[in-house]
Amino acid sequence: MTVTAPKGSTGGGCRRGSKESGQPDLALVVNEGPRRAAAGVFTANRVKAAPVLWSQQVLRGGEVSAVVLNSGGANACTGPKGFQDTHATAERAAAALGHSAAEIAVASTGLIGTYLPMDRLLPGIDKAAAELSPHGGERAAIAIRTTDTVHKTAVRAGEGWSVGGMAKGAGMLAPGLATLLVVLTTDADLAPPVLDKAVRDAVRTTFERVDSDGCMSTNDTVLLLASGASGGDPGYEEFADVLREVCEDLARKLIGDAEGASKDIRIEVIHAATEDDAVEVGRTIARNNLLKCAIHGEDPNWGRVLSAIGTTKAVFEPERLNVAINGVWVCREGSAGDGRDLVDMRFREVRITADLDAGTHSAVIWANDLTAEYVHENSAYSS
Amino acid sequence: MTVTAPKGSTGGGCRRGSKESGQPDLALVVNEGPRRAAAGVFTANRVKAAPVLWSQQVLRGGEVSAVVLNSGGANACTGPKGFQDTHATAERAAAALGHSAAEIAVASTGLIGTYLPMDRLLPGIDKAAAELSPHGGERAAIAIRTTDTVHKTAVRAGEGWSVGGMAKGAGMLAPGLATLLVVLTTDADLAPPVLDKAVRDAVRTTFERVDSDGCMSTNDTVLLLASGASGGDPGYEEFADVLREVCEDLARKLIGDAEGASKDIRIEVIHAATEDDAVEVGRTIARNNLLKCAIHGEDPNWGRVLSAIGTTKAVFEPERLNVAINGVWVCREGSAGDGRDLVDMRFREVRITADLDAGTHSAVIWANDLTAEYVHENSAYSS
Repeated sequence: MTVTAPKGSTGGGCRRGSKESGQPDLALVVNEGPRRAAAGVFTANRVKAAPVLWSQQVLRGGEVSAVVLNSGGANACTGPKGFQDTHATAERAAAALGHSAAEIAVASTGLIGTYLPMDRLLPGIDKAAAELSPHGGERAAIAIRTTDTVHKTAVRAGEGWSVGGMAKGAGMLAPGLATLLVVLTTDADLAPPVLDKAVRDAVRTTFERVDSDGCMSTNDTVLLLASGASGGDPGYEEFADVLREVCEDLARKLIGDAEGASKDIRIEVIHAATEDDAVEVGRTIARNNLLKCAIHGEDPNWGRVLSAIGTTKAVFEPERLNVAINGVWVCREGSAGDGRDLVDMRFREVRITADLDAGTHSAVIWANDLTAEYVHENSAYSS
Repeated sequence: MTVTAPKGSTGGGCRRGSKESGQPDLALVVNEGPRRAAAGVFTANRVKAAPVLWSQQVLRGGEVSAVVLNSGGANACTGPKGFQDTHATAERAAAALGHSAAEIAVASTGLIGTYLPMDRLLPGIDKAAAELSPHGGERAAIAIRTTDTVHKTAVRAGEGWSVGGMAKGAGMLAPGLATLLVVLTTDADLAPPVLDKAVRDAVRTTFERVDSDGCMSTNDTVLLLASGASGGDPGYEEFADVLREVCEDLARKLIGDAEGASKDIRIEVIHAATEDDAVEVGRTIARNNLLKCAIHGEDPNWGRVLSAIGTTKAVFEPERLNVAINGVWVCREGSAGDGRDLVDMRFREVRITADLDAGTHSAVIWANDLTAEYVHENSAYSS
């Protein structure tokens, strides 16, 4: 059920002691080959963590032998020393695995602005490398958690090949990407340019459409490693479909475990003039704090949906907007529609449909409600 | 201390019974002349309430005799009937005051998507008109409150003339404008084009720089009525300065009374390449939920400031960013600076300084923290 499901991948996770909880905090995922093709997508935040800057360089070569991931520290806003620490991390993994550091990607998550405890991290890499296993994916997925209450994994099979994945991310979760670390593996035999296109396409309509709290991270990283160990070479469409399914599954799990959330909100924007319009309107609805509070209170407050739509540049006429909440069209043509009391909002999933009546395009954005627990989790301690 | 401080203005407020609390909910501000020059600024939300659409038409004539304001219902997303209700409101006030309805502005605030209780509102107008007084400004300011815990008024004197104002707004409070109703009066003798320029200039650097919760209202209205009753004709600069001071005072009071807030956050962006850059960065910091939570928790989490800045298009280099919280430069050149433990955050006002090191421009944005009380106020009932 995870990154070690496809052939040619091994993984592991261990404790190196950076977390007060004593939970595992270091993960290693290794591509055992025969191929070591890779692709990746990184945060659009202009303030990028050291491991993001490093891994972007590594990806330029199109080959990745292994990924070292640590939780308990983002290594962001740490200057030249932070970059040296990432470099040392890659060198240590390279030595332990017998590869070149130029093929070792690094990903970090945790508090911004503090240095990593290298004295504990480096020995942890040796330990994780010594314990690598074709069944170690679960341990890797557990070790990358921060405020995640569960670890997130997914796997899908193609014909003779498969795709596995793991993800973390529970706060600072918004497009471009979500604040997340994702490692995807496959034993399909594909070249870096194909992987690159597939991972960008998959991310664009999955992780990029998750907006838990509107906050974009400095560390977001999605990596796809292809070992070619199955010998199978699926066509692009077939591979892209399966990869997208794995990403969709992981993205949905991120929303389902977002910090403090009591509701998962599926926002579908329909009849938009363009897909960009649909996405813009969906994200704007997703980020409206007042609406997020109303959903938490199980109040079908469609006025807050309209006031959010009104702040976008999308093509629409106010008097032609329709909004449904859990299937009840509470707003028709810009005014009150069917009765608010018909809307049943007791369940965790809440569906909002915004009909712009301006075209044929649509998009789905996933968000969460805003709760006192979210405030507590993000005010009671630094993260 | 309010809209009836300048000569030539009368006001009043009364109960018409739309609020469960039994609080006053209808206000009237009348320009008794001799001049009835006016100007106004309205929400940039494309979903505009009926009274906004009406008052925009009225303002085109450059003259306003009176403003009718109701709380307890926004009359937004109410279609043709909503507009007819606003028209009827203006007609009733015109009849009661002996003016033309084309000179009566209307402003509403409250829940979006429901019709106003016209059977109670119209008699309320007669009552408010009958009780108009040169000392009625305080009652008017009280009657426009929604979730405001205090009424907000301000007054400043020029040489032989003065400016008075009242404001409401506690949630859905963000630029373009804040969710607010503001009425400003003056007895200075100025023509509509001068008033228009002055009110736009004043709003741009006061109400437009308040961002409590990132949510833009459908009803924001700022009106300036000039009676000319003092006979004084100050120059533009002199008048604009005083008007700006009144707006600044009111804007500061709005932030100080924002829903559920425990902190007022003054975000100053300095050394920006342009004023637009400074404003964009300030607003982006102001809207970052994670940072707002951290401030609530008295955690000087400068990493969240940098991650917010990184999502903007402003000119800056990550390794040249500096951030101070309450005067302590906790981030220098993109990395950890002086000790976080030096920052004292016990008081209500928190000052964040973001130094972009990219130019000579600056801007101040005011925001609030994010609290469990905000969530409660906006989830426990419809508003």
